[in-house]
Amino acid sequence: MDKHKAFKTALHEKDGIDQPESVSRTAIEHVTQLRKKQPSADELVARILKGDKTALSRAITLVESTNPAHLEKANDVIAQCLPHADKSVRIGITGVPGVGKSTFIEAFGKHLTSLGRKVAVLAVDPSSSLSHGSILGDKTRMEELVKDANAYIRPSASGETLGGVARKTREAIILCEACGFDTIVIETVGVGQSETAVHSMVDFFLLLQIAGAGDELQGIKRGIMEMADLIVINKADGDNIKSARLAKTEFNRALHLFPAKSSGWQPTVTTCSAISHEGIAEVWQTINKYFELVKGNEFFGLRRSEQNSYWLTETINEQLLGRFYHDPAIAGLLEQSKKAVQDNAVSPFAAAKVLLEKYFRL
Amino acid sequence: MDKHKAFKTALHEKDGIDQPESVSRTAIEHVTQLRKKQPSADELVARILKGDKTALSRAITLVESTNPAHLEKANDVIAQCLPHADKSVRIGITGVPGVGKSTFIEAFGKHLTSLGRKVAVLAVDPSSSLSHGSILGDKTRMEELVKDANAYIRPSASGETLGGVARKTREAIILCEACGFDTIVIETVGVGQSETAVHSMVDFFLLLQIAGAGDELQGIKRGIMEMADLIVINKADGDNIKSARLAKTEFNRALHLFPAKSSGWQPTVTTCSAISHEGIAEVWQTINKYFELVKGNEFFGLRRSEQNSYWLTETINEQLLGRFYHDPAIAGLLEQSKKAVQDNAVSPFAAAKVLLEKYFRL
Repeated sequence: MDKHKAFKTALHEKDGIDQPESVSRTAIEHVTQLRKKQPSADELVARILKGDKTALSRAITLVESTNPAHLEKANDVIAQCLPHADKSVRIGITGVPGVGKSTFIEAFGKHLTSLGRKVAVLAVDPSSSLSHGSILGDKTRMEELVKDANAYIRPSASGETLGGVARKTREAIILCEACGFDTIVIETVGVGQSETAVHSMVDFFLLLQIAGAGDELQGIKRGIMEMADLIVINKADGDNIKSARLAKTEFNRALHLFPAKSSGWQPTVTTCSAISHEGIAEVWQTINKYFELVKGNEFFGLRRSEQNSYWLTETINEQLLGRFYHDPAIAGLLEQSKKAVQDNAVSPFAAAKVLLEKYFRL
Repeated sequence: MDKHKAFKTALHEKDGIDQPESVSRTAIEHVTQLRKKQPSADELVARILKGDKTALSRAITLVESTNPAHLEKANDVIAQCLPHADKSVRIGITGVPGVGKSTFIEAFGKHLTSLGRKVAVLAVDPSSSLSHGSILGDKTRMEELVKDANAYIRPSASGETLGGVARKTREAIILCEACGFDTIVIETVGVGQSETAVHSMVDFFLLLQIAGAGDELQGIKRGIMEMADLIVINKADGDNIKSARLAKTEFNRALHLFPAKSSGWQPTVTTCSAISHEGIAEVWQTINKYFELVKGNEFFGLRRSEQNSYWLTETINEQLLGRFYHDPAIAGLLEQSKKAVQDNAVSPFAAAKVLLEKYFRL
């Protein structure tokens, strides 16, 4: 048949080519591999206990997940890791933006790993879901530490509530400890509520400050100073040395106004220059003295056990309230009730009674 | 028969006297009268609206009762009084024991009634159930005011929780206002948490102080000073006048360190001698200036409506948590869980999950 002719009739149909398979063998292979790679809870735990940081990261991601299936698995991993946890020192570090927290933690962390310690740095920053991780979000700010085989850095979990972020961080502590990290550093921002949360999950609380013009006590809430076991005045270098020493005296005086701590520890003030690594070793010496004291007088164990109780209650309270306020049947009614009490049409107590009766009948 | 002989045999029985009735007719009469006298909710409201202090006291007793039948009636009374409330000024007064709160309130109250105002004095003192009413418990401490026809004094409700005491006081405010009292004074002790509760139910917060040796700012929590709209330094008489003036300067300086209030009001400091009635009129003038400001800039209504929302949420939260912790099926389990988390046998979050699942399945 003449080739050209054949093409000229509209009825002609090309033979076509073989259709490719509707599924890609290689893609199937790839997904199967991936699925195989998702380790079971047991596998994750086994790897964590061997010090595998990739497994640790995966487990923390599970803990942070909002997927209910992940929750189940996360709880399993935590439960298996728990007997291997509780063997570290936990240090909280706070300070308002600008005091040089990242630089300090990098210098402090490197000092610890040089002493043979394994350091995990976590963060509690409830604002991070909005600010896209204002602390530890940019790991490059700790260039040296992030490359250190004996260090592990994890940015803050994101979450709507401080309670949620705090819970996730507290579970991450357990995982890090099971993974062999013997020094857990929890970083937070100096804004108040998150300090209280961090204070209730650490053994030692360090407040980072800088010497500033004017009143040294401004800019940091009194309650946060009251929690501090050590105040470190950073950036005590160059022209700052004199003002840092003055600040040290001022803070020391302020610390003595607070009631004695039940740990028996008298909080102190020290200066350092994180950027030139000066004073970092002294900070660690002070922290060691603290641990000698509280492990000697049994405050250490007592406080950890109190913290466990605290988190039990906090978690229960958060969930009891969250369940009510997120109940779809309640939400609409609550808005109406709020309007009614604001307009003084009904007393807040009567309105609460109606809402609660409705809730418990559901 | 010979009298003596008859008595000598053991078989003798005396004739005896008529048994009295097993019930007392007069007692029945009395109880019937009493029951008749227990007025209905409608009667109580009608009498309260006429300014009847006896009915007011009865209604407050109903509000304070833990009897569920009373609760129903109390809610009815409150609901009917509510449209007649919200027409007073509400003033919170706090100060540590020894600053002369009773003397001040007596002088202040008498000054107000002399101006034609009707003054109700309530108290919030969660400790009163233990201390048998440490504030306002002894009405004789306000001898003059208690006899004043235009004054009404009511000691603190007793209750285990601050939340309970606060709720009862807040409902008592509604009743007092419906009863025609245009000035409500809420007294509390300078211990922290109860100030926050009182602050959230008043329009104006007055902190009573005295000039003392040493640091003037000691002895009162910073957070309480931050709430104050006016600091009054009492006992500025005799040898104290000079130190009171010094204290005034110190407190004034301290007040200026706090951030500006959303009311637009700049808190001030004044001195007075409650015992000699000096400076009392000035205190009332200052309070009046405050009300002129906040009624002009609409802060007054806005704040009351926010307070109503606050109490709605507080009540809901208190009851949601209370119901869980008082659940007999939970209480025992909770103790076990606490022990387990303290011993690090289970994570606080896992333990909370188990308890909550159990609770919501009940």
